Amino acid sequence: MKRNVLIIGAGGVAQVVAHKCAQNNDLLGDLHIASRTVSKCHDILASVEEKGAMKQEGVFEAHALDALDIPATVALIRKVDAQIVINVGSAFLNMSVMSACIEAGVAYIDTAIHEEPDKICENPPWYANYEWKRREECAAAGVTAILGAGFDPGVVNAYAKLAVDEYFDDVQELDIVDINAGSHGKWFSTNFDPEINFREFTGVVYSWQDSEWKVNQMFEIGKEYDLPVVGKQKAYMSGHDEIHSISQNLKIPNVRFWMGFGERYITVFTVLKNLGLLSEQPVTTAEGLEVVPLKVVKAVLPDPASLAPDYTGKTCIGDFVKGTKDGKEREIFLYNVADHEEAYAEVGSQGISFTAGVPAVAAAILVASGEWDTGDMRNIEQLPPKPFLGVLDRIGLPTYIRDEDGERRLTDWS
Amino acid sequence: MKRNVLIIGAGGVAQVVAHKCAQNNDLLGDLHIASRTVSKCHDILASVEEKGAMKQEGVFEAHALDALDIPATVALIRKVDAQIVINVGSAFLNMSVMSACIEAGVAYIDTAIHEEPDKICENPPWYANYEWKRREECAAAGVTAILGAGFDPGVVNAYAKLAVDEYFDDVQELDIVDINAGSHGKWFSTNFDPEINFREFTGVVYSWQDSEWKVNQMFEIGKEYDLPVVGKQKAYMSGHDEIHSISQNLKIPNVRFWMGFGERYITVFTVLKNLGLLSEQPVTTAEGLEVVPLKVVKAVLPDPASLAPDYTGKTCIGDFVKGTKDGKEREIFLYNVADHEEAYAEVGSQGISFTAGVPAVAAAILVASGEWDTGDMRNIEQLPPKPFLGVLDRIGLPTYIRDEDGERRLTDWS
Repeated sequence: MKRNVLIIGAGGVAQVVAHKCAQNNDLLGDLHIASRTVSKCHDILASVEEKGAMKQEGVFEAHALDALDIPATVALIRKVDAQIVINVGSAFLNMSVMSACIEAGVAYIDTAIHEEPDKICENPPWYANYEWKRREECAAAGVTAILGAGFDPGVVNAYAKLAVDEYFDDVQELDIVDINAGSHGKWFSTNFDPEINFREFTGVVYSWQDSEWKVNQMFEIGKEYDLPVVGKQKAYMSGHDEIHSISQNLKIPNVRFWMGFGERYITVFTVLKNLGLLSEQPVTTAEGLEVVPLKVVKAVLPDPASLAPDYTGKTCIGDFVKGTKDGKEREIFLYNVADHEEAYAEVGSQGISFTAGVPAVAAAILVASGEWDTGDMRNIEQLPPKPFLGVLDRIGLPTYIRDEDGERRLTDWS
Repeated sequence: MKRNVLIIGAGGVAQVVAHKCAQNNDLLGDLHIASRTVSKCHDILASVEEKGAMKQEGVFEAHALDALDIPATVALIRKVDAQIVINVGSAFLNMSVMSACIEAGVAYIDTAIHEEPDKICENPPWYANYEWKRREECAAAGVTAILGAGFDPGVVNAYAKLAVDEYFDDVQELDIVDINAGSHGKWFSTNFDPEINFREFTGVVYSWQDSEWKVNQMFEIGKEYDLPVVGKQKAYMSGHDEIHSISQNLKIPNVRFWMGFGERYITVFTVLKNLGLLSEQPVTTAEGLEVVPLKVVKAVLPDPASLAPDYTGKTCIGDFVKGTKDGKEREIFLYNVADHEEAYAEVGSQGISFTAGVPAVAAAILVASGEWDTGDMRNIEQLPPKPFLGVLDRIGLPTYIRDEDGERRLTDWS
C-alpha cells in the first residue's frame, strides 16, 4: 500500500492526470503537482476545483520544481511524503526524475521513453538506450518503475499481453493502430508541440518484422483500416517505443505501429520537410538574422493547448492481433474509442491528452493498491493486464473487442 | 540617333541585357553597367568577355551606384555620356531612375511597374499610381520613357497592338498566357526572388472584363490551354501590369492575364500561405526571437540565380486575341517559344530572364535608331509594333502565329 502522489509536469497530459488523481484521491491520498512554471500548476488546480473533481476532501498543492535538479526533486518528494511519482513532464526529464525516485525509494511512472534534447528520436533499441540500463539499480533499491504507462505505449501493451494470455496460443502479428478521427477546426495544427511532433516523423521508420528491425521511409507504407465507430481511415507505418519492448518481452515476431494521418497533414509535412522548414539547423536570412526554421514554423502554428475547447470527433486506438488458437488461425482487434468533447467536458483536455493521461493514473492506483507494486522496473506488458484494464474501464477508458462474434465491450476483469 | 547605354541593375535580367547590348554595340555605342554591388557588374562583364559577346571593339565598364540617389545617377549618366538608360534593377528604383533621366535629358527604358518597398503589389490602376503621373514632365523635357519593355509586359503589348492593326477590325478579348514549361530540377524553387514572387500572389486577382475591373481570388479561376510546342498547360488568372495599360490604350473591353502554375507550386504556395509563413509581419519564437516568416522561407529556398545551369525545357508566352475581321469572328494566338538551355548557352541566364531582358535591348536599339525615340512617355502598345518585333526576330525572340492557317513564324516586318 503506497500513498500520496507527486505529478511532475503541467501540460495537457498533466491536466488529465491531475483530474483523474483528484477523482480517485480516496485511493491515492495527498496530491501534489510540480512544474518549472508554477502558474501552470495553479491553473490546473483551479480547473480541478472548478469541476469539483476531488472525490473526497484532501490535499492538492502546487510546487515550483526544475525536475532536472535531482536533489531538489528528492527534497520535494520527501517534503510532501509522496510514495508515487507520475512523470508527465518533458521527455527530457525521465532519467533525472527516475534517479530522484531511486534515491528517495519511491515508485516511478512515466508515459514515454527518455529523450536527450540534442538526440530526439534516437534509433532502436529504444528502451535499451536509457531505461533498461537501470533495471538492476531499480531492483536493488526495490523501486517500482513502470515505463510507458500512457495509451500507446501503455494500454496497447496491456492489450497485447491480454491477447497472448487469453486469446491465442501463439501470436504471430501485432499491428498497433492509432487513429485520431477528430477535428480541431483549424486549417492545420499539430495536436502537441509542433517541434516534437514533426521531429517524430522526419527520420526513418523502424518496425519489427520476422524478428528483426526493418527500415522504411516515413509515409512509404500506408494502409486503409476499417475501424469501429471511426470507419475507414488511412494509417502509415511509423516507429514507436512499444514496438521495441513488446517484441522483446512477448517474443512476437512481427510488431508494427500505424499512425493515422489525413491528407492535409501529409501535404503540410511534405512541403515543410522538403523545403527545409523542419530543420533544427539554423539558417541565415538575407538580413543576416540566424534562425532555426522549425522554431518559426512552431511560432506561426496554432498553440495545441488552444485546440481543446473546439475539438470534436473521436479517437480509436487498438491492437490487431493475428495468430493461432486451438490450432486455428484467428485475428482480433482490441481497442478503445475516446471522444474529444466528452474529454474536454470532464477534464478540460482533448481526447489525445485524455487517452495518454488516464492510464498513468490507473497504474498509480494499482501501485497504491499493491497489485502492480513489484519493486522493480517493468514495461506494461510485463504486468498483469486485467487489473489495469479493469481500472481503466471504471475510470474512463473501456476496452472493446472485435472478433468472430462481432464488436463488444469487455467487462469481466476478474 | 542616340548612343551609349547605361544598364542599371546586375541580376539575371541585367545579365541578359548586358549580353544583348554587347552583341549590338555597333548600334548602341559605349556600354556601362551600374549596381550597388559592383562585384556583380564585374561578374557580368567577365561573362560577356568569356562568351566573346561584343560585336565590335568598344567600351563596357562597371560602376558602383545607389540608384535611389538621383544626383549620383545624374552624375554617372553625364560622366559616361549615356543617352539611353535601361533600368533593370529592383522595381523600387523606377521613380528615382526616371527622375535622373529627366534631369539628364536622356531616354529611359524599364521592364516592370514601379513599386514602393512597403506597398508591394498595389491595386489598379497600376501605371496610373506612379508612371503616368509623370507623362507631362517627360513630354515637357522631351524625354523618351518606354515603360514595361520586357516580355510581359512588353512583347505581349506589341502583339496586342499588332493584332489590332493587322488582324482585326474590332478586338473583343485579349488573353495573355505565360507558361514556363521548363524544369529546374529542384523539388521546389521560385524562378526569381521568393519574397517578390510569393507577394505577387498573396493578394487578390484583378482582371479587366466588360470594361471594368473584376476581382477574384488567386487560383480561383484556372483554365487548361493547349499550346504550341509545350502542349497542354494549366494556367490561372492573375493580375499583371499590362492589363491596365492595354485596356486603356487599346480600348479592348476584356483583358485577362493567365499564369501557368504546376501542382507543386500551388501546393507549396497554399501550405505556406495558410500556415502564415508568407507573412511579412514578424512573429516571435518561443525563445523570444522576432522574425519575419517570409524571410525565413526565402532563406531555405534555392537561390533562383543558381537554377540557370540546370534549367531545361521551354517557355511559351503569347496573346490569344478574339474579335471580328471583315465581319467574321476569328481568334488568333501570337506567341514566342524560348528554350532555357539555349538561353543559358548564349547569355548565361535561363529562359525567363532571357525573355524579359532581350526586349529591353530591342527597345534601346529602336531608341538609338530614332524609330522609337518619341520624346515622351509610352507604353509598348503606343509604339509601332513591327520595328520592335522585327528587331526581336533578329536578336532571339521570333514571333509566331496560330490562326485558321495553322502555326508559322512571322518574318515580314516591313
